[in-house]
Amino acid sequence: MLNQRRLRDYGIKIGKLEPGALNSITDVKGVKVGHKTLSNDQMQTGVTAIIPHGGNIFLDKFKAASYIINGYGKSTGLMQLNELGTIETPIILTNTLNVGVAADGLVEYMLTHNQEIGNTTGTVNPVVCECNDMQLNDIRQKYVQKQDILDAIQTASSHFLEGSVGAGRGMVCYTLKGGIGTASRIMPLPYGTYSLGVLVLTNFGQLPDLSMNGRPLGKELLHKTEENLMMKDKGSIVIIVATDLPVSQRQLQRVIKRSVTGLSRTGANLANGSGDVVVGFSTATIIPHHKKNSLIKMHILHDEDLDIPFKAVGEATEEAILNSLITAEAVTGKNGASRPALRDLVAKHSITL
Amino acid sequence: MLNQRRLRDYGIKIGKLEPGALNSITDVKGVKVGHKTLSNDQMQTGVTAIIPHGGNIFLDKFKAASYIINGYGKSTGLMQLNELGTIETPIILTNTLNVGVAADGLVEYMLTHNQEIGNTTGTVNPVVCECNDMQLNDIRQKYVQKQDILDAIQTASSHFLEGSVGAGRGMVCYTLKGGIGTASRIMPLPYGTYSLGVLVLTNFGQLPDLSMNGRPLGKELLHKTEENLMMKDKGSIVIIVATDLPVSQRQLQRVIKRSVTGLSRTGANLANGSGDVVVGFSTATIIPHHKKNSLIKMHILHDEDLDIPFKAVGEATEEAILNSLITAEAVTGKNGASRPALRDLVAKHSITL
Amino acid sequence: MLNQRRLRDYGIKIGKLEPGALNSITDVKGVKVGHKTLSNDQMQTGVTAIIPHGGNIFLDKFKAASYIINGYGKSTGLMQLNELGTIETPIILTNTLNVGVAADGLVEYMLTHNQEIGNTTGTVNPVVCECNDMQLNDIRQKYVQKQDILDAIQTASSHFLEGSVGAGRGMVCYTLKGGIGTASRIMPLPYGTYSLGVLVLTNFGQLPDLSMNGRPLGKELLHKTEENLMMKDKGSIVIIVATDLPVSQRQLQRVIKRSVTGLSRTGANLANGSGDVVVGFSTATIIPHHKKNSLIKMHILHDEDLDIPFKAVGEATEEAILNSLITAEAVTGKNGASRPALRDLVAKHSITL
Amino acid sequence: MLNQRRLRDYGIKIGKLEPGALNSITDVKGVKVGHKTLSNDQMQTGVTAIIPHGGNIFLDKFKAASYIINGYGKSTGLMQLNELGTIETPIILTNTLNVGVAADGLVEYMLTHNQEIGNTTGTVNPVVCECNDMQLNDIRQKYVQKQDILDAIQTASSHFLEGSVGAGRGMVCYTLKGGIGTASRIMPLPYGTYSLGVLVLTNFGQLPDLSMNGRPLGKELLHKTEENLMMKDKGSIVIIVATDLPVSQRQLQRVIKRSVTGLSRTGANLANGSGDVVVGFSTATIIPHHKKNSLIKMHILHDEDLDIPFKAVGEATEEAILNSLITAEAVTGKNGASRPALRDLVAKHSITL
Repeated sequence: MLNQRRLRDYGIKIGKLEPGALNSITDVKGVKVGHKTLSNDQMQTGVTAIIPHGGNIFLDKFKAASYIINGYGKSTGLMQLNELGTIETPIILTNTLNVGVAADGLVEYMLTHNQEIGNTTGTVNPVVCECNDMQLNDIRQKYVQKQDILDAIQTASSHFLEGSVGAGRGMVCYTLKGGIGTASRIMPLPYGTYSLGVLVLTNFGQLPDLSMNGRPLGKELLHKTEENLMMKDKGSIVIIVATDLPVSQRQLQRVIKRSVTGLSRTGANLANGSGDVVVGFSTATIIPHHKKNSLIKMHILHDEDLDIPFKAVGEATEEAILNSLITAEAVTGKNGASRPALRDLVAKHSITL
Repeated sequence: MLNQRRLRDYGIKIGKLEPGALNSITDVKGVKVGHKTLSNDQMQTGVTAIIPHGGNIFLDKFKAASYIINGYGKSTGLMQLNELGTIETPIILTNTLNVGVAADGLVEYMLTHNQEIGNTTGTVNPVVCECNDMQLNDIRQKYVQKQDILDAIQTASSHFLEGSVGAGRGMVCYTLKGGIGTASRIMPLPYGTYSLGVLVLTNFGQLPDLSMNGRPLGKELLHKTEENLMMKDKGSIVIIVATDLPVSQRQLQRVIKRSVTGLSRTGANLANGSGDVVVGFSTATIIPHHKKNSLIKMHILHDEDLDIPFKAVGEATEEAILNSLITAEAVTGKNGASRPALRDLVAKHSITL
Repeated sequence: MLNQRRLRDYGIKIGKLEPGALNSITDVKGVKVGHKTLSNDQMQTGVTAIIPHGGNIFLDKFKAASYIINGYGKSTGLMQLNELGTIETPIILTNTLNVGVAADGLVEYMLTHNQEIGNTTGTVNPVVCECNDMQLNDIRQKYVQKQDILDAIQTASSHFLEGSVGAGRGMVCYTLKGGIGTASRIMPLPYGTYSLGVLVLTNFGQLPDLSMNGRPLGKELLHKTEENLMMKDKGSIVIIVATDLPVSQRQLQRVIKRSVTGLSRTGANLANGSGDVVVGFSTATIIPHHKKNSLIKMHILHDEDLDIPFKAVGEATEEAILNSLITAEAVTGKNGASRPALRDLVAKHSITL
Repeated sequence: MLNQRRLRDYGIKIGKLEPGALNSITDVKGVKVGHKTLSNDQMQTGVTAIIPHGGNIFLDKFKAASYIINGYGKSTGLMQLNELGTIETPIILTNTLNVGVAADGLVEYMLTHNQEIGNTTGTVNPVVCECNDMQLNDIRQKYVQKQDILDAIQTASSHFLEGSVGAGRGMVCYTLKGGIGTASRIMPLPYGTYSLGVLVLTNFGQLPDLSMNGRPLGKELLHKTEENLMMKDKGSIVIIVATDLPVSQRQLQRVIKRSVTGLSRTGANLANGSGDVVVGFSTATIIPHHKKNSLIKMHILHDEDLDIPFKAVGEATEEAILNSLITAEAVTGKNGASRPALRDLVAKHSITL
């Protein structure tokens, strides 16, 4: 979106459905994304914030669901999100050992903007997801501070960078530099046209498994480069899905669960050490924090109309992962460890994508 | 309902909420229950059918959910019921080894009434739940025939017998004669008054654990009677919940999950061998089989209003279980095995309930 | 295995791990598969039986787990299989409307071979999975009889046919003729070499999505053939996983869940109408029906060693699906409807696989 | 244990099984509990730490499971605990808005004691559970500091206080002062005698529902006292289960799920706002962090032997809740709000327990 060369700029289209105007999670109206990147020598980490809407998300909640592909991860806030089917804070992404700080910072942000929390109403459920960036970042230093959470939230915009930014700064995907990626799809349904956007934080996979739109790109790279690019797959992926589809929580969960098809098509094996988590929300209905003396009116689609959304989330997830790879810049960090950028390897070895 | 002496006729009230007019699952408008009792020497079994509404339930489905308290059971149809959140057939209760026959009979019933199934539309998902009545019934004979399923459906009415009838004919609860029981609650909410009814098929528990409204009745009976009433707890309970509450499937599942409070208060330990399953449906919204070119409109309550429904389902479950015990008549069956009726023991030993 | 030309006979290898001797689920020692094919005009259906071991599976159970990819299906027996973590019957596959009959037939088979069931011990949990073959088979006739279940069990062997046989007779996959497929992988681990085999019943997908080892074969076929091969995706897939890995039920469930990666790589979108179910068992430990007065001793692998099994199940699932397609013969059935065989299309249009 | 008058000191025995020597979670060998109580005017909160064993729990993990009775809560660490079936840190209990700080403090504790975390091995999964003590504590101030986590861990002992201490300082149960309670049971099995202990953090319920061993004590108190003791049920309960039973994770989850029977018998309705969470671990088998080149050997009980453990966990949970009530002292906190102690009310109104 911001002068970065993305997958489609190389002429590669994933799937059949059309992307939205920005081909981004921010194609879903109201959604914004902000980064705080921390990059200095051993410190290669950061924060990414996804803002569901521009109003007060605590008072005006969205329906939400999560799905655990592989629970080897430390995300927080998903239990209540599933039980009540709502999201009431921004979603924060960061490194694994900073989840506590991030949750604490997010709670303080919510307290500041909602004097009633813990006072005249109950508490708040912070949603924080993570990947482990210890290969490039000295994660034991827990560099992320509470202020970084606020900064990421404050800079949120509908235009944002992908690749080695925010929470993606130190992430490694298919042994290459990974990080933040996004994509979206437009879904024509009989009664209206809807959007679905995906943002991923990619930190998983081994190079020989990397597949780009069916092409075994990982194996090609292995053969062409002299570098030793092999590493054990210890990573994870966080997948955030936003949509304006009028769905129930049950339907939303069915939709986001299908992100695994796109993930699998890039070559993922859902390895033991890879904590793969999906969080989704729908902007179609506001669930008010304070109940009124009346029922909540809503419109819901029929499950028979879910095939296009199912396809959309698979396609957008696949493309978002590939966008995270192709936009990422090389990073050198902890003890001089570095990961190459796919775009650099491709250029260096004259590979046509 | 039908001239049987029930718990409240003994002056015992469970909980605080008021029951409906019939204190029955059939207080939820449109719900009907029918039995086919098979009783002859070694054959002490049967079928109970719960009809969600009087129309074509395949074309006009209700929202539904199930919850597995203990999955040591052979119920069928619950996977799709949970995935799609709808019920599209009557619910059949019978003995464990006749689930296949019951599912087959129910499928034939649905085929007869819906020429399009397997023809111009997909198939149908029969819901059958069961308990093991092998203590009183020669279950290996698989006495239930497909016609018995049809008969139970056909006799369904808003007035029906409890105790040793239908699927409850051979069931044993707290080592006494168990079987079918029901109860209901009225739920006053800010925007209307709603009903919730429970029907149980009871076949679990050991006598010393039986608690009636806090009173350790099981221990009292053990001390007063010379009979050896002890048996291993190998049983199960099926709990069917009907309500006209305007709930989403997620909310309905939260409601029916609370049936475990009432079950626990009667003394249940949810034993290893006890397959304890809850199936619930809401009559508030019809989900059409054939999607239209428009969204489905619905009204949903706020989760903050669920406390009364949560209390209602606990109270109704507890009372339904006790109704199954107090209405049951003694049965003698397989190899002369017999189980006494609570009402007879109470009378014989001059126990005031 | 039986003189059928399979995927590897066309020179196509899926993944990196080596297949077992038969490249079949029967590479796992003791596992056998039998078919009963019903083919005559409007009747194009059948039964496939998977036998976990040659002894008495009721008395000597195996650990088992199931995973629901999409619950739009009518499988039976999975609730108890998950709760207790064991399988105690053969697994029967058949058409959707015959699940009741199949469960009943399987129960009778178990009763015949175990006089104690329902007598001196409890009941039995029949496992039956299904797909809807109504496109080629007049499914409303419920052609399958109890005897067909027994026949399929009796003919079970380590060598068996793939394609349009048994339960696969009427199935349609990626709009082509689908059915039964199998594949296996050898897994070298530090303390031994293990096998994992997959058998699939394929009945899902739309042609443009079909991907063969990364190649968009479905789109190629659409362009080359004049035939109208498009149909709505109403199908399903059943995936049976057998392994001799020494795993706990939790680990087994993690393994079988990864079958979705292989499924996705063939092009599946996990459509709304596709009931996608996985059942797995491990032959490494026998769980006795009758408890002894001692603990059960077992050896279990470390979760860190699961990456190879995760890869194995993905690869074997992908290859099994493709085997089901490439081995299937064309079938004409209900009202003259027919589905072409992939091998015939490939030959006719001179496509090199 | 520490000169507090507990339920059995009033002559009240819950259930049939015998308690352990201390009638405490610390009857399970190696388990220790520590508190840090923060009490000063508006600050009425704290931290409780449960230590699974005295060694390095990161290197030598225990099998663990969690069960969500009602997911309206903010516990962290449960996703990975369930996926991998292990616990690798102490369990920290605190107030809801301090979960982030507690997780951060626990991470720092683990980093200090394990130089390899985030260095030569992966990260660590901190387990923190919470209840909302905003009725008595000014929760918005987030009084708990990282040092308090370390202090609670350091003071851990097999003898510890119950009632208004540690994380229980500001908690309210059945509208009375709640907090920390514990109890245990001895389980005679054919091959050995085992222990199971429960520790609860109680913060739920309404007075009229309180039932003590079947006696409607809540209603009696309401009638006898002039004080207005009614409040909306916004609370929660955390239930920690420790045992030396040789169980698989599946079996452990079955065991801890039965805690709901004891919870229900005290009168709980599992209200919407009550986040009810159970975490359990077994000390029977050590799962090493570093895999060896061999399988892990273990002994597991047969599911048929679970009935006594199921009874044990229900009884111990019921008694632990009642212990939390009867040991708690009255607390006055935020804006002068106060909650009376059950023991004071009982004394004041001359009620014989």
